[in-house]
Amino acid sequence: MTTNRIYNFNAGPAALPLSVLEEIQASFLDFKGSGMSITEVSHRSKWFDDVINDAVERLKRVLGLDDKFHVLFLQGGASMQFCMIPMNFLAGGGSADYVNTGTWSTKAIKEAEIQGKSVQVVASSEDKNFSYIPKDIAFNTEAVYAHITSNNTIKGTQWAEFPDTGGVPLIADMSSDILSRPFDADRFGLFYAGAQKNMGPAGVCVVAVRDDFLKMVPDNLPTMLKYTTFAGKNSMFNTPPCFAVYTVQLVLKWLEESIGGLDKMAEINRKKAGMLYKTIDESGFFSGTAAPDSRSVMNVTFRLPSEDLEKAFVQEALENKMGGLKGHRSVGGCRASIYNPTPVEAVETLCDFMKDFERRNG
Amino acid sequence: MTTNRIYNFNAGPAALPLSVLEEIQASFLDFKGSGMSITEVSHRSKWFDDVINDAVERLKRVLGLDDKFHVLFLQGGASMQFCMIPMNFLAGGGSADYVNTGTWSTKAIKEAEIQGKSVQVVASSEDKNFSYIPKDIAFNTEAVYAHITSNNTIKGTQWAEFPDTGGVPLIADMSSDILSRPFDADRFGLFYAGAQKNMGPAGVCVVAVRDDFLKMVPDNLPTMLKYTTFAGKNSMFNTPPCFAVYTVQLVLKWLEESIGGLDKMAEINRKKAGMLYKTIDESGFFSGTAAPDSRSVMNVTFRLPSEDLEKAFVQEALENKMGGLKGHRSVGGCRASIYNPTPVEAVETLCDFMKDFERRNG
Repeated sequence: MTTNRIYNFNAGPAALPLSVLEEIQASFLDFKGSGMSITEVSHRSKWFDDVINDAVERLKRVLGLDDKFHVLFLQGGASMQFCMIPMNFLAGGGSADYVNTGTWSTKAIKEAEIQGKSVQVVASSEDKNFSYIPKDIAFNTEAVYAHITSNNTIKGTQWAEFPDTGGVPLIADMSSDILSRPFDADRFGLFYAGAQKNMGPAGVCVVAVRDDFLKMVPDNLPTMLKYTTFAGKNSMFNTPPCFAVYTVQLVLKWLEESIGGLDKMAEINRKKAGMLYKTIDESGFFSGTAAPDSRSVMNVTFRLPSEDLEKAFVQEALENKMGGLKGHRSVGGCRASIYNPTPVEAVETLCDFMKDFERRNG
Repeated sequence: MTTNRIYNFNAGPAALPLSVLEEIQASFLDFKGSGMSITEVSHRSKWFDDVINDAVERLKRVLGLDDKFHVLFLQGGASMQFCMIPMNFLAGGGSADYVNTGTWSTKAIKEAEIQGKSVQVVASSEDKNFSYIPKDIAFNTEAVYAHITSNNTIKGTQWAEFPDTGGVPLIADMSSDILSRPFDADRFGLFYAGAQKNMGPAGVCVVAVRDDFLKMVPDNLPTMLKYTTFAGKNSMFNTPPCFAVYTVQLVLKWLEESIGGLDKMAEINRKKAGMLYKTIDESGFFSGTAAPDSRSVMNVTFRLPSEDLEKAFVQEALENKMGGLKGHRSVGGCRASIYNPTPVEAVETLCDFMKDFERRNG
């Protein structure tokens, strides 16, 4: 065992609960008495069946999903969903609404347009460099779905409440805030999330899709691009990414049994984000980049007075065992990603460091 | 550390070298002094750059690939390649030849046909339940590519030598025998392999594709379905399956540094398969299911005199710490998968057990 652990503020792949990592490590040569590593057991074995079934049950229980939702473990990340969603649900014509709140929304829109699908961008915050979440959006009542990005990792914005679509089913990319707070899933036709932020390692994307959406999937798509293929086989039409699914299972177990569920998790997340935004707001040195009413509870983006100071801040933080504080390469600045596994003491340590850095450089 | 390890004859996910598992375990909380697990480091970090670049270099060195080949790490398994290959290379019209040697070839053909592509099945061994590899095949000289499955995991057959296509570039699904023996890559436009048999855990598919094949990829495909997307970004257009790539890197390192390269590996594999086929052939009890000239060096398929005896054999073997000997659910019987990581002593132990089982039940 090692004590050389840092506080990890990476945007994804990101920190995982230490207890989860320790459990993986301890059982890595002999999973549940199988005499094999989890990476060596067959996906058709009882060992892996128990893993994937428990992961599905826990996810449904934690999010309060009823049986009209199918929970799938897919590969290709959220980026593959950008392509599969219009392919599966706009095959019979029809149009979809998209709200553009940043880099990932833009990519989702592009992948629908590449396929020649009818897409209406009903709102965008591009006019102010995606620093806010649009309000009072006029959705098209005949749209097949309305697509949003629930949290914008790069710009540090998040939907505080999901928009009123007038009954049109929502589809959301929740890659960077799934499992961070409760929400009303019944308004969604599908939601999806790459695991590598709040749920597990890179290499698996969780999709929850409703029965009536599966009925829209056309027969003549390539097998691996149809949601029905995976829904009909408990995500095991072909070999799933077993290790990533296993890690997600353990993170869900941690969320239920160590944290105590989604309400508790949301409370902790609000506390962590509150501490950081307070440090920023009380400072004359750090400045938040997101509009206050659109601030993300997961990714706290901020600037320092100069790029040189930002560079020094990131470097000094790393020397003090706080990693991953550099902003996304497309926007610069600083960013603290504080997903579920990031402990409160990591944020306390960071806030103390920020205040000290300001005293010395402000 | 544990001593409760079995001899693992699983068909995939399959055994990994114990030294690789031990290295993953030892560094699982602190990868290379980063203070993070390999599952927590950013894919944009120097740590992961070193991993993926080393994996690419090792694969090219081991297989003797020159710079016209691009090595990619994709998600979705070989099954996703069944779809992407015709989508990328038959977009401008043109036809492809396919040889049908079993379940996986059949699926590859189906995925090309679903897309309305022109496919010629130039040979098939379906007439004898896919128990042999066809000979003297008349390929179409104008075909864009000729697709084969180099080793048939389920039926236990393998191409001893790759067919003469009259200059048409080969494309091969090498999922179950890549890195098991040297071959002349220059005859291939592309080859691919799900990692979970000879190379690593489930969740990553290695693709080697030639420059001139990349030139055929049309611009208007969904981004995640174009080989050019991944070739242009060193497999990091989006977050790759980092842990799986890392494990592949370690397996390649083991292959080069502990085994001594592909010639040595091939020699060991021939020895292991030779021992098993000899045990079968000298027995009046076990019978091989593949035609002798088409036998696989990776998957040894055999029957016992009755299904009851097969069931008892698999059960008793497991009690003696030999797992995964049941044949694929679609064909029954028994199968010993003896990929690269399976040590010689595992096969010796199995042969001894087979002889003993025959003595007691023959």
